[in-house]
Amino acid sequence: MKFTRFTVESEILNGVAAEEGIKEIEGDIFENWSYTGRTFSQNDVELLAPIEPNQIIGIGANFVTKAEDRPNMLPEIPVFFFKPTSSVIGPEEEIVIPCSIEEVKFESELAVVIGKDMKDVTKENALDYVFGYTVGNDVTAPQFFHEDGHWMVGKSFDTFTPLGPFIETDLDPLNVNVKSKLDSVEKQNSPTGLMIVPIREMISYLSSVMTLKKGDVILTGSPVGAEMTGEGSTIECEIKEIGTLRNSFVKAKRSAASI
Amino acid sequence: MKFTRFTVESEILNGVAAEEGIKEIEGDIFENWSYTGRTFSQNDVELLAPIEPNQIIGIGANFVTKAEDRPNMLPEIPVFFFKPTSSVIGPEEEIVIPCSIEEVKFESELAVVIGKDMKDVTKENALDYVFGYTVGNDVTAPQFFHEDGHWMVGKSFDTFTPLGPFIETDLDPLNVNVKSKLDSVEKQNSPTGLMIVPIREMISYLSSVMTLKKGDVILTGSPVGAEMTGEGSTIECEIKEIGTLRNSFVKAKRSAASI
Repeated sequence: MKFTRFTVESEILNGVAAEEGIKEIEGDIFENWSYTGRTFSQNDVELLAPIEPNQIIGIGANFVTKAEDRPNMLPEIPVFFFKPTSSVIGPEEEIVIPCSIEEVKFESELAVVIGKDMKDVTKENALDYVFGYTVGNDVTAPQFFHEDGHWMVGKSFDTFTPLGPFIETDLDPLNVNVKSKLDSVEKQNSPTGLMIVPIREMISYLSSVMTLKKGDVILTGSPVGAEMTGEGSTIECEIKEIGTLRNSFVKAKRSAASI
Repeated sequence: MKFTRFTVESEILNGVAAEEGIKEIEGDIFENWSYTGRTFSQNDVELLAPIEPNQIIGIGANFVTKAEDRPNMLPEIPVFFFKPTSSVIGPEEEIVIPCSIEEVKFESELAVVIGKDMKDVTKENALDYVFGYTVGNDVTAPQFFHEDGHWMVGKSFDTFTPLGPFIETDLDPLNVNVKSKLDSVEKQNSPTGLMIVPIREMISYLSSVMTLKKGDVILTGSPVGAEMTGEGSTIECEIKEIGTLRNSFVKAKRSAASI
């Protein structure tokens, strides 16, 4: 089932994408919802990010090029980071490149949406707490990485976390391909089997540290092939079973306190 | 004015601490609230963290020992990081040390509570967007810092962000002392004038990167003197004009997926 958020005449609605169009729903998508009876053509609505995340967690450098390169042991402490919820945008919205730089990096990713609060959950049970999966683009300005390894500023600009188009609840996350095309040229295309820290282990580990909450989104890492790009280009992040998340890049307008 | 959240007979209420006790209020503390007419003795209530933050941002290594040590120039990219909202606890709650380690670090800090959404705000105007100030303890397990400089895991365990006891709205943040006592022995005591990135510059810089939201909390850095400590000790973080935030340390109980 594909959940979506969208606007019709400035009203924000929730829905389920189906053959006959987007069927409006009401209630809490995680717990208790029902169809309202209204159906919209996808051409008549503007899709939003399918969730307003509670928090966003990312993982660094989590894909190898080929299976033989996977390390025998998982890293003792994976490279995790947070992104601010203020960085989220939806499909077709513009990614804004900060004034002082010319290029940013795109990173197509499978994004996990947590559906139930969880703490100290084993990897065997980890997927039971997942509501569904969407596509994420972990846009990054490495020019703003701190030399001592802190990525916060370079990951946190407004518009740096496109999500969408749908949350797919029926998906085997261990068997999908994460792709991207920059201006129609394929740049990334790897199965999730090439992750260094696999999804179940990732969620279980995070739950050993902190209580993951309903609505938390985990960006599970980007395949080899992410590149820097600039104003005027268009990035399409795709997981076939979920959909294609397309965004274009523009430059920020300078104001008194911008960087 | 000192805002507080508290429980009475398992009900969570908001209030204002006054001479005559805690006066209950209703409504949104940021925008529109009123007194209900009920007043509670502070002895009859359990204080909670005075806010459920939207997000929590911290800054690393932001105090010098003495004014002469302040660098002439601000760092080009300050060391910022996020902490999860799931790590928040209130006054008198226990800080839980993860199973696999024996000690964690306390860090007493002035915590800024943002009151209005803000983007690209100059340092001259930055404090206009602040609702008030509380005391924070940026508890840290450096044993879980990644060797490449990523602090996320070591900063993110449940209970690692005590906040409280009050949000003081009438405070000059540039002229207070940030203190701590470990088992009644003073460990930290520095004026906020010893910050490397001062508060107005810090908020303005963050707003140049991301839209800061109502309810975001910024931990502004910890004075020299923070130490590692273990089970059984008690830490008091104090800013005289706000109050004292006291918490004790206990060890986690091991479960199947804990670390």
